Amino acid sequence: MKKLVAGLDIGGTNTVIGFVDSDGNCLYKTAISTPGYDDPAVFVKDVAGIINDFFAGQEDTSLIGIGIGAPNGNFYTGSIEFAPNLKWKGVVPLVDLFKKHFEVPVILTNDANAAAIGEMVYGNAKGMKHFIEITLGTGVGSGIVVDGNMVYGHDGFAGELGHVILFPGGRPCGCGRKGCLEAYCSAKGIVVTYLELLEKEGKEPDGEITPYTISVSASKGDKAATRTYKVTGEILGLALSNSVAHTSPEAIFIFGGIANAGDILFQPIRESFEKNLLPIYKNKVKILPSGIKENDAAILGAASLVWKQ
Amino acid sequence: MKKLVAGLDIGGTNTVIGFVDSDGNCLYKTAISTPGYDDPAVFVKDVAGIINDFFAGQEDTSLIGIGIGAPNGNFYTGSIEFAPNLKWKGVVPLVDLFKKHFEVPVILTNDANAAAIGEMVYGNAKGMKHFIEITLGTGVGSGIVVDGNMVYGHDGFAGELGHVILFPGGRPCGCGRKGCLEAYCSAKGIVVTYLELLEKEGKEPDGEITPYTISVSASKGDKAATRTYKVTGEILGLALSNSVAHTSPEAIFIFGGIANAGDILFQPIRESFEKNLLPIYKNKVKILPSGIKENDAAILGAASLVWKQ
Repeated sequence: MKKLVAGLDIGGTNTVIGFVDSDGNCLYKTAISTPGYDDPAVFVKDVAGIINDFFAGQEDTSLIGIGIGAPNGNFYTGSIEFAPNLKWKGVVPLVDLFKKHFEVPVILTNDANAAAIGEMVYGNAKGMKHFIEITLGTGVGSGIVVDGNMVYGHDGFAGELGHVILFPGGRPCGCGRKGCLEAYCSAKGIVVTYLELLEKEGKEPDGEITPYTISVSASKGDKAATRTYKVTGEILGLALSNSVAHTSPEAIFIFGGIANAGDILFQPIRESFEKNLLPIYKNKVKILPSGIKENDAAILGAASLVWKQ
Repeated sequence: MKKLVAGLDIGGTNTVIGFVDSDGNCLYKTAISTPGYDDPAVFVKDVAGIINDFFAGQEDTSLIGIGIGAPNGNFYTGSIEFAPNLKWKGVVPLVDLFKKHFEVPVILTNDANAAAIGEMVYGNAKGMKHFIEITLGTGVGSGIVVDGNMVYGHDGFAGELGHVILFPGGRPCGCGRKGCLEAYCSAKGIVVTYLELLEKEGKEPDGEITPYTISVSASKGDKAATRTYKVTGEILGLALSNSVAHTSPEAIFIFGGIANAGDILFQPIRESFEKNLLPIYKNKVKILPSGIKENDAAILGAASLVWKQ
């Protein structure tokens, strides 16, 4: 009997459902529209249907648990709480809703924490007891691992490093405050930096601008694009050096499509990081790309919640 | 048979040795000069003599362990490593030296971590699983507790919140970098702020200036003194709001003589802290004074290392 975990990645646009074995192979995955559901109970009923249909066709497999990564997912309460990018407002008791359909363990956390646990179970953090996962995407998320365990804090919301204030009074952030790391190092933040630098050169942007198009321009020697990644890396390096002064990790992993920019991002991160580290930490902490297979990363992260237990 | 722990507080000037019961009563304490010893082995021999002499006179008590708080004390290695304010250079294997004289457990950590464990065992953090202890003194130290355990990190040096860079390129810090929290909120940092503010008013300082004299001036309505505590509290409040985004504690305790300034310090800390917190953390995290008896605080912290186990 092959044991599988259902991994759910709930995003603002799609919810992806995948079935993952203990080696991190995603055997099958499918997706439904998250905003297509006004009522989370109907959403859960449909997801339950998809899961049951998958196992109905296979006699030699069994479901041992459901792991869910969702924005503002709270590990302690099993609820999605006040997620700004979801249609469901207030507190949604997602785990309880799933338990009406299944007897197996159902575990919820936020997407960045799921990525961190995925890194530990399937990625580059295998065997590490102390590390930080940074997710660069629409937002900047993070998961902090101490002594081999996820840090959830007293309320389940630990590890919001995207909202550390680096520059008091600085660039406005989506959270309503100013100068947060996310305002500079998220996809949008990187684009803003690029547009600011272009403007200083008296140039106009050409077509749609994304972190990817900026990295392509940088590889062709574009000055503003190259400088954008340098500035982004310097800011992230500074922020991470401050995080080391909190939990002193062995490594920090950078997760998400933006990390694919490679050396033009990693080199300034590492330089700024080492420059800003307190001397006792220097040359000890690795800054590394995530080792989770990118296509299935969110699903593997969600599934790892169950495999980790 | 009454069980006692020997608590050692090793400081740059004095080493205090005290004998503490499980209720946090310090039955006897004495001190020797730390810089009087060039050789740490001779220092340990003399401390061992003091401990043995104490128990030799009492038939109804027994030593169950030795807890040591020391600058740059490393819990994992049992060594004092490159402490800038001690005469002993490099790595001093303090626990091994003590084990030549005693069979009981010997536990070392840095002074701020000892204060945090003391808070948990004897102070205001009893029963708390997630909190941060901030020590304000010659330096700014900290101890972070997650899930009821001290966070030591991968190298034993986690929790150096005094060296989070708050203002890149800002005021020089004793660590060789610029803009660290310690450069603003240590005793020296507070005095520098006061002198800067006095200078702006075109005034000269009157006599010796310490955080205590500044707090006395503030209570008499002195403008620069009042403003000094306001600025100090605002900076500390900002730094602590960033720390909450790491480990999401239930409370943050402020330890050390500077905290005796009371409301003139705590009010601006709390205002700035709440203002700068990410919305999901607002009105959840308490900023409180330490609850450890001040005279014996360092000894109680050191002794609690053994009682906690």
